[in-house]
Amino acid sequence: MLSISSTNTDSSSGTTKILTGSNMNPRVRKAEYAVRGELAIRSEKIKVELANGSSFPFQRVVGCNIGNPQALDQKPITFFRQVASLVEYPDLLKDENRELTLKLYPSDAIDRAKLLLANIGSVGAYSHSQGIPLIRENVARFISDRDGYPADPSKIFLTQGASAGVQLTLQMIVEHPDVGIMIPIPQYPLYTATLAVLDAKPVPYYLDESKAWGLTTEELQRSYDEAAKNGVETRALVIINPGNPTGQCLSEENMREIIEFCRKNRVILLADEVYQTNIYQPEERPFHSFKKVLKSMGPQYEGFEMISYHSISKGMIGECGRRGGYFECEGLDQSIMDEIYKISSISLCPNVQGQIMVDLMVNPPKKGDPSYVQYKQEYDAIYFSLIKRAKKLEEMFNSLEGCTCNSADGAMYLFPQIRLSKKAIAAAEVAGKAPDQFYCMALLEATGVCMVAGSGFGQVEGTAHFRSTFLPQPELFDEFCGGITKFHAGFMDKYRD
Amino acid sequence: MLSISSTNTDSSSGTTKILTGSNMNPRVRKAEYAVRGELAIRSEKIKVELANGSSFPFQRVVGCNIGNPQALDQKPITFFRQVASLVEYPDLLKDENRELTLKLYPSDAIDRAKLLLANIGSVGAYSHSQGIPLIRENVARFISDRDGYPADPSKIFLTQGASAGVQLTLQMIVEHPDVGIMIPIPQYPLYTATLAVLDAKPVPYYLDESKAWGLTTEELQRSYDEAAKNGVETRALVIINPGNPTGQCLSEENMREIIEFCRKNRVILLADEVYQTNIYQPEERPFHSFKKVLKSMGPQYEGFEMISYHSISKGMIGECGRRGGYFECEGLDQSIMDEIYKISSISLCPNVQGQIMVDLMVNPPKKGDPSYVQYKQEYDAIYFSLIKRAKKLEEMFNSLEGCTCNSADGAMYLFPQIRLSKKAIAAAEVAGKAPDQFYCMALLEATGVCMVAGSGFGQVEGTAHFRSTFLPQPELFDEFCGGITKFHAGFMDKYRD
Repeated sequence: MLSISSTNTDSSSGTTKILTGSNMNPRVRKAEYAVRGELAIRSEKIKVELANGSSFPFQRVVGCNIGNPQALDQKPITFFRQVASLVEYPDLLKDENRELTLKLYPSDAIDRAKLLLANIGSVGAYSHSQGIPLIRENVARFISDRDGYPADPSKIFLTQGASAGVQLTLQMIVEHPDVGIMIPIPQYPLYTATLAVLDAKPVPYYLDESKAWGLTTEELQRSYDEAAKNGVETRALVIINPGNPTGQCLSEENMREIIEFCRKNRVILLADEVYQTNIYQPEERPFHSFKKVLKSMGPQYEGFEMISYHSISKGMIGECGRRGGYFECEGLDQSIMDEIYKISSISLCPNVQGQIMVDLMVNPPKKGDPSYVQYKQEYDAIYFSLIKRAKKLEEMFNSLEGCTCNSADGAMYLFPQIRLSKKAIAAAEVAGKAPDQFYCMALLEATGVCMVAGSGFGQVEGTAHFRSTFLPQPELFDEFCGGITKFHAGFMDKYRD
Repeated sequence: MLSISSTNTDSSSGTTKILTGSNMNPRVRKAEYAVRGELAIRSEKIKVELANGSSFPFQRVVGCNIGNPQALDQKPITFFRQVASLVEYPDLLKDENRELTLKLYPSDAIDRAKLLLANIGSVGAYSHSQGIPLIRENVARFISDRDGYPADPSKIFLTQGASAGVQLTLQMIVEHPDVGIMIPIPQYPLYTATLAVLDAKPVPYYLDESKAWGLTTEELQRSYDEAAKNGVETRALVIINPGNPTGQCLSEENMREIIEFCRKNRVILLADEVYQTNIYQPEERPFHSFKKVLKSMGPQYEGFEMISYHSISKGMIGECGRRGGYFECEGLDQSIMDEIYKISSISLCPNVQGQIMVDLMVNPPKKGDPSYVQYKQEYDAIYFSLIKRAKKLEEMFNSLEGCTCNSADGAMYLFPQIRLSKKAIAAAEVAGKAPDQFYCMALLEATGVCMVAGSGFGQVEGTAHFRSTFLPQPELFDEFCGGITKFHAGFMDKYRD
């Protein structure tokens, strides 16, 4: 009876259920989240079957559907984990254990853990609902150091990951079903899923694949105007920078235009900046925060309403499972800030270990600290390896028949386009799947590689894409690329018109 | 600029904001959560002012507004924290460190950490969205051991605390604004707040204060019928057992009646059982799970739809800040289970350290294990101290003029009634506050003790109550009781008619 895979058999018992698919919350039913959808569910099943000895044409499932570095053996930053370990078990910080503890932990990790506990009390206690004050102060300092403009801890909310922050703030904005939120296409499906649940209107604007996934204000205005014509009141614009799934990184000039667009059209800017340190061409395409660009635009933009999101899940940290992040509010009305606090308080507080990881992210070891050298080495190793793997995967995709792929300025993904044959499209139709979903499912069954079909992110009608992370282990990367190449050639041959 | 207390001044700049209190999501605006409301916000401010040297008639703020044991110095269970510490820093588990690690950690904590990491990989990786399979298996075993009936890991969802589970499952049920959810009065305000956000109708049923906060099916039926008359389609019944804020513990017979009520009226049972180990009269008023009682009622209840919630925040564990819990689904349609999975996946996964604490809660050290003796000792010390403090506080409340208080069978709270003078009620009106809110604010300003007014939980019209935890430190408990007694006498004198 403890089998993990057993299914609910009650639905076949003939009794009518009180709650069914047809009378449940229709907004929830409508939400889609392809990143953990059909392909991911199938890959989880294959994992279990592999572990139980079933035979597949591959040894392991490689989850490229989601940016989950530590699931693919990326080592966590040692210093961060040392601090997290110490705050869990405060006995280690007692003077009588110091000699022993110092043999396992560096002194700066011990000092940091002590400082945190002195402020927090216990990681097992609910904290301030907005987040631990000391950590919010450190986040504010990080932002002001990054941007050269001041930041205010009272406008920062710690969250259980950026997703939770996005959900919470979108919830504030959606007054009625005709409220529209502009989202890029392709987009990260958290946005469409959340808008479906909130019963709001996604207002799509398209990134231009032919111009390295570029974004123009003409397209923003077209999108806004078209929505207005249809009776939609657009209240906010989501920008994902660096892009997900596209990896593009916006220029400062482009960002100024976007801010001007928002001001002119009275639209709140929601800046998803979780990939701000995943920047792979730092000279040509550096990251600029919207906060910095806004502040550089002078006093006539005073009061501009913006929320920006950050996370511990991405960057070189990759502490996804911990669920931590923050958002910074800029120019919001105090009544809205009070309401954000209230709604946060209903969920009590973000988990404290996630908050602590935010502290470590914004305040890592500094030059001269005992842990600095190791920290820098670990950080750089991950960073340069990501650059290398991004390049290698991009080249591989561009070498495939019918496949083209923009390079990644940033983030963790590539989003190549594939041109499928009529025969393949017809076979997909027979299988009841979108063509790119059909391709990705065949790839999964043949190689164990799990990607996400472009249809899950949105794409120009009639095109097909997929998203892959470039996170597989460096030592397995050639094997990974080789497997996809071989599968692709076979697939193209099989369905050649 | 880094001051934590600075306020948003943009709202006074004269520019009209895009988002304001009057065009934000009205469902969010409507939600109220008194546990962290006006009193708690004021108490946070006093804390900061105290720390900055301001003078108050007391030395410290005592937060009795929320069940947050570790914030009041309750020591965490050592074994649990040892495991949590080890999984954070896997280098400690390497063979070359074994000798040293064994000087700081017991061998069973090391073994458990190894087992968990072998299953999880890294606490920094996203896990299965439903929760780590091994941990769900352990939860199922815990439930089946507790109840004597089998449990199925595929029907268990790990969550970021019971609150997240309640929010997620209520969201499933609310199809349209005329859907009603029955809630007790007094209730834990998570329920009314969540229903406000979901735009559903709370259908109140009253607990009978004169009968130790007893619950009758006559009252349930009255409540249901009245809602039906008003066009409300009642879909679910929330039972909090042991009660919050009331502390009552239901008899098996009463629970059978409730289940029968649900079957007859086609209502899903939502059983909030987070206080299931906080049982203070285990002989007279033991805890029974609804799952066990349901299963004991025989095959004609096959397919009965129920969800029960549990948490790591309460009991003797009190790991609130970690955000962990689970819910078990019983009899739900498979399509609903699939939708619960989908909606969970949009938030990716519950934080992994919270999941690990669930594992430890359901699978603590056993007799004969190296850590058993210490575990048992720590557990019992907390348990017996809670019994003592509950009794002491109850007696104190009952000794106050105009105050009566039922004893707590369970949970962490007392919910005394106070009869205020006409003069006090008039003074409250002048201050623009509900009478009990006025009393609690005066108590906070005079003693530093933060409680929650009964109006935040709901109460019979014209009565006044407040909720207090009995969690203040044992060594400060007499001082705490003395402060309240003195304040109360003064308050009664001041406002004597």
